[in-house]
Amino acid sequence: MSDTLIISIDAMGGDNAPAAIIEGVSRVAKSDPSVFFFLYGDEAKIEPLTKQYGLAPDRYKIHHTTQIVKADDKPSAAIRNGRESSMWKAIMSVRNGYAGAVVSAGNTGALMAMSKICLGTLAGIDRPAIAAVLPTVEAPVVALDLGANAECNSQNLVEFSIMGHVLYHVLFGEAKPSIGLLNIGSEETKGREEIREAAGVLKGFGDKINFYGFVEGNDICLGRTHVVVSDGFSGNVALKSIEGTAKFAAKCFKQAFKGSILGKIALLFASFGLLKLKRKIDPRRYNGAMFVGLNGISVKSHGGADAFSFACAVENAIRMARNNLCDKIKDELSNIMEEAEEIIAEEK
Amino acid sequence: MSDTLIISIDAMGGDNAPAAIIEGVSRVAKSDPSVFFFLYGDEAKIEPLTKQYGLAPDRYKIHHTTQIVKADDKPSAAIRNGRESSMWKAIMSVRNGYAGAVVSAGNTGALMAMSKICLGTLAGIDRPAIAAVLPTVEAPVVALDLGANAECNSQNLVEFSIMGHVLYHVLFGEAKPSIGLLNIGSEETKGREEIREAAGVLKGFGDKINFYGFVEGNDICLGRTHVVVSDGFSGNVALKSIEGTAKFAAKCFKQAFKGSILGKIALLFASFGLLKLKRKIDPRRYNGAMFVGLNGISVKSHGGADAFSFACAVENAIRMARNNLCDKIKDELSNIMEEAEEIIAEEK
Repeated sequence: MSDTLIISIDAMGGDNAPAAIIEGVSRVAKSDPSVFFFLYGDEAKIEPLTKQYGLAPDRYKIHHTTQIVKADDKPSAAIRNGRESSMWKAIMSVRNGYAGAVVSAGNTGALMAMSKICLGTLAGIDRPAIAAVLPTVEAPVVALDLGANAECNSQNLVEFSIMGHVLYHVLFGEAKPSIGLLNIGSEETKGREEIREAAGVLKGFGDKINFYGFVEGNDICLGRTHVVVSDGFSGNVALKSIEGTAKFAAKCFKQAFKGSILGKIALLFASFGLLKLKRKIDPRRYNGAMFVGLNGISVKSHGGADAFSFACAVENAIRMARNNLCDKIKDELSNIMEEAEEIIAEEK
Repeated sequence: MSDTLIISIDAMGGDNAPAAIIEGVSRVAKSDPSVFFFLYGDEAKIEPLTKQYGLAPDRYKIHHTTQIVKADDKPSAAIRNGRESSMWKAIMSVRNGYAGAVVSAGNTGALMAMSKICLGTLAGIDRPAIAAVLPTVEAPVVALDLGANAECNSQNLVEFSIMGHVLYHVLFGEAKPSIGLLNIGSEETKGREEIREAAGVLKGFGDKINFYGFVEGNDICLGRTHVVVSDGFSGNVALKSIEGTAKFAAKCFKQAFKGSILGKIALLFASFGLLKLKRKIDPRRYNGAMFVGLNGISVKSHGGADAFSFACAVENAIRMARNNLCDKIKDELSNIMEEAEEIIAEEK
């Protein structure tokens, strides 16, 4: 812990960049003295913000570039034309071994595609996935894929399951995390062909993988399984539906209390409990999704993140880098993939 | 309103059948004197329940059958072997014109398949969809498909959009309800091919259809558009994620209050506001999904519905039947489908 960790920041990505990005970085810098930041982006914009938010000069270096990957750029175009962009250069610093992780709030598709090209995928993995930790009633849940792959085949779903297994083990120490495949019914006859196929393969793993079976949208938040696996489209829909409902519920509760004087008094009485609750389920705290299956740590912050939320994503990246998450995943994965390949081959 | 409306009930479908079904029917019978119920199922089980829950003998007729479609029956098998089932017979009573609507809490896939065969699809509709009304911060939202079609092409999505438009108009009087296509990003380049194709066709309708564009999971609960259209897999995942999160939020709030004496006092003070809120967003009130695109009203209750919830689904069915929803949809649909077919043909 005495060594300095370098984290690369795409300072120009996201709806509130670069202001919220620099403010977020500054927050982390103040609480964690052993991190140094590479800030990629327009120096003329970034430099005044470091002063405004109190990011000390000995805590960062700006790598100047004015090219930006826009929110609506196609990933293919971003890769072709974006080699001078803040996003590309930030990722390359991880590839070159200068930085331990990269964090960006920019275009998800472009970040994924660039990370894949620059960092490379792990042996045995066809497609990397976006994974995130969600709060639930019970233990936290790791969900993947959350949007990297709009369409998936059964092989992809099996790989995501294995990556989810390894990720949960590494993050939370659970030896045999339970794995659920997201479906639209728990019966074996339900859902899409590729999901039923993947279930067949996962059952073949026996006790190597704790395969629970199918789970449904309502099981995610209730923490039915430690890991929830889906294609990137369904996973993204689920994640965002959960976010939207949480906001809706908070709004409804506020209205219920503010509608009467009694309610307002009640709010005062309950403020301590509510603050604790807010702290626990604030979606901003869970910001920072990881691209799993890559040879390096690339973290995606929510595009609309504010400074607090971006800081959480950076802290997530620091934790992953400090825990050598990538190497651990690589090791565990290579063990299990050998067996997996045999099982998949037998199924065919 | 002086005429009697007959509603057919599959008394044997759902996790809590037949007790919760008969108790729910009894509730509706007490509050609405102009409805008569056909109850399909095992007379030996149903008859004692009618007495237990106070359903008067002049308010129902039991159509005895002991065959039941089970929750894990494949739809194809249910159709082949289930012609004596309570579900099939209840649906047939609508087809034969004896009843105005059928309500079942049984196997969704079987109910859909049987309804399609017995009632037939409306002209111009390739695949019927499951639609439901969801509570939001603003106006209610109609969402479809919620699980009838796990995979859809662009043509299906366009048809669902048109049906959603008509359904919202008929249910809520809104002349030009806004239509959103569920996707994983609001940018035009995002998501699956069939969704982008459907968006192209819907734009071609000009001001015939108020096409908003893409919406994401979080937009559903926030009421971004009046209608949200998706394939049945994503729609089902979204619906259940919303349900699960609502339950999770309620549990968290309860914990926040019950953790301290101050919190308990606050709960007392707020109880009136909370009751109002519970009434407003209680998911049981929104029970009763409709199969749109069929020549008759077939309503699916949640499989786990309790008596209160099942009663809500029955009331929904009564409202649809009394409003001649099916004829209105048929009329509006045939108008708009003529134009739609021209536009779709031009696109090709």
